[in-house]
Amino acid sequence: MKFVCSKSNLVTGLQIVSKAVPNKTTMSILECILVDATEGVIKFIANDMELGIQTVVDGDIVDRGFVAIDAKIFFDIVRKLPDSEVTIESDENSKVTITCGKAKFNLLGRNGEDFTYLPPIEKIDGVAVSQFTLRSVIQQTIFSIAENDSNKMMSGELFEISEDNLKLCSLDGHRISIRKVKLAASYPYKKVVVPGKTLGDISKILSDSTTSMVNIYFTDKHILFEFEKTIVVSRLIEGEYFNIDQMLSSDYETKMSINRKEFLECIDRATLLVKEGDKKPVIISIVEGKMELKINSTIGSMDEEISIEKQGKDLMIGFNPKFLIDALRVIEDETIDVYLVNPKAPCFIRDKDANYTYLVLPVNFTTVD
Amino acid sequence: MKFVCSKSNLVTGLQIVSKAVPNKTTMSILECILVDATEGVIKFIANDMELGIQTVVDGDIVDRGFVAIDAKIFFDIVRKLPDSEVTIESDENSKVTITCGKAKFNLLGRNGEDFTYLPPIEKIDGVAVSQFTLRSVIQQTIFSIAENDSNKMMSGELFEISEDNLKLCSLDGHRISIRKVKLAASYPYKKVVVPGKTLGDISKILSDSTTSMVNIYFTDKHILFEFEKTIVVSRLIEGEYFNIDQMLSSDYETKMSINRKEFLECIDRATLLVKEGDKKPVIISIVEGKMELKINSTIGSMDEEISIEKQGKDLMIGFNPKFLIDALRVIEDETIDVYLVNPKAPCFIRDKDANYTYLVLPVNFTTVD
Repeated sequence: MKFVCSKSNLVTGLQIVSKAVPNKTTMSILECILVDATEGVIKFIANDMELGIQTVVDGDIVDRGFVAIDAKIFFDIVRKLPDSEVTIESDENSKVTITCGKAKFNLLGRNGEDFTYLPPIEKIDGVAVSQFTLRSVIQQTIFSIAENDSNKMMSGELFEISEDNLKLCSLDGHRISIRKVKLAASYPYKKVVVPGKTLGDISKILSDSTTSMVNIYFTDKHILFEFEKTIVVSRLIEGEYFNIDQMLSSDYETKMSINRKEFLECIDRATLLVKEGDKKPVIISIVEGKMELKINSTIGSMDEEISIEKQGKDLMIGFNPKFLIDALRVIEDETIDVYLVNPKAPCFIRDKDANYTYLVLPVNFTTVD
Repeated sequence: MKFVCSKSNLVTGLQIVSKAVPNKTTMSILECILVDATEGVIKFIANDMELGIQTVVDGDIVDRGFVAIDAKIFFDIVRKLPDSEVTIESDENSKVTITCGKAKFNLLGRNGEDFTYLPPIEKIDGVAVSQFTLRSVIQQTIFSIAENDSNKMMSGELFEISEDNLKLCSLDGHRISIRKVKLAASYPYKKVVVPGKTLGDISKILSDSTTSMVNIYFTDKHILFEFEKTIVVSRLIEGEYFNIDQMLSSDYETKMSINRKEFLECIDRATLLVKEGDKKPVIISIVEGKMELKINSTIGSMDEEISIEKQGKDLMIGFNPKFLIDALRVIEDETIDVYLVNPKAPCFIRDKDANYTYLVLPVNFTTVD
């Protein structure tokens, strides 16, 4: 195999596929990127058996062929090359030579035969959404997936298509994050659970283009995302997702309209007094015209007031500050509406059309003063 | 104590003095910053008993007094305050209140009496050098101090003043870095050894101003740097420094003039093939008109050629790539002169006037091919 391409094309390609190279594995072939120039285009493929990514790199093929190269070393070398044309060659013993200007690297690659290609997926009933929109809805929900693997379903996100609506939803037992977006067309009903890791990785590859589209295809076991020159295939999490609708409610006793940025910065300051691993709640008192936020810890105490608009009853309620911060960070509205019932019932942050809904469970607190 | 000042003044002051707050200590008072408003100015002081820093923060004192506050918490809180006026108060029980807008923090401070002030130093025979110059010469030499403490003298830098010359020198047993700069005036002879940590910390506080001066004062046991509103006092390392002059030589058998950036980038690429902890040398062959650099490791091999101007004999010699990289990074000349004798003798990188001299010992290598 032999081909020539620019350093920058190589870097872009490696950046994309590297997301599917596992950090730790006992199968050393998974740490490789397959460089495949057998079919007239230069393809880079990485596959950790859960998630596979394939992208096309522009360049000129001199001799067709394929070889697997250790991803980390390959990427490290390419990054440090001068900004120039790069020639990549391999021989029948998988010896790889990378030449750029007067610099020449020799590496031992691996036989491409050992590599597992992406599973073949039939591209029918594709759902189209812009790269920007898909990236946004992922970033706006992914933080509330459960981090540990004790409940596999919680480590994924619900991905639901109903007519021209796309809904993403994640929950971790303490909170729920839901985002809805309108699609440009209507599609058959689909409901799958996508691993959080897949969505996290794909959100890092997606651009902020509002015009470049991602086409999404489904099988029983896989989801495929196709955009620009890249294909991402991931296994799905099998099983029935939680019944979200029965956890939601539109009843409330107290409604507070508050400036999002002021609220966020105030909670952010309060968390300075919480040592890592400590579970100190912030305590919020909602009265006419203002909200007072307090925190007491071994380090010290803080209180701060913010002007609000209130409807309904006065209320005092405690929250894990991190959960409020995570939700407030990804909302774009200047003013948000917070709906509350009592100190033991979940609080809802949502807009009028429920394009976003963030449910956060309160925590118990003891009033000392 | 009570005073009012801007958030940005507080941040600047805390950034400066925090350098003298130890990361780990068994004496909790050392983790504090003394806030001293007893004398009509607001002083912040930190002192880890080796290094002490004091700076003046502009603000309005309402009630004189002093209190010690945990540096980390104080700095964290101040950084997250809104950009506005901040009021800092303490009462007779060292209870500290920080108020900014509608946010109010309460902390338990410590009695300022427990704090150790900087040692008093008489300011005579001060040596003046610009902040930029002092910062530069430190950054251009500090990398070759020895990191471990097995030889205390090697963990410091020689600081020598002779008439209108300032010379800094560091060495770690494998290399020596020397920088000389001209001062605007002549001074009495001084020769001290300053702890590397002090110089590292001070280089982070110094600005790149070529007009703002640092005044340096000496006692038998201390060095004092005074600039803008800040005083840095450090203990000196006691004892006789190494006799550098007898390690230097101006004889050579081979002289190579090479583009510094090309040489640096080439070695940088070669180090990709060296795993951490591995001690693979780069092997340099100097012949008429070109230098060839080679490296062979378990990962692979690399070779690259660079055009040079050569005087004297051909030579093949091996180096620890890191030592060359460290020196090449801090030299500003476009083309550098490298002086060599044989594969076992030190190599010198120096300019004509010896404003900089970098000595690097070669390493043994076995030629396989």
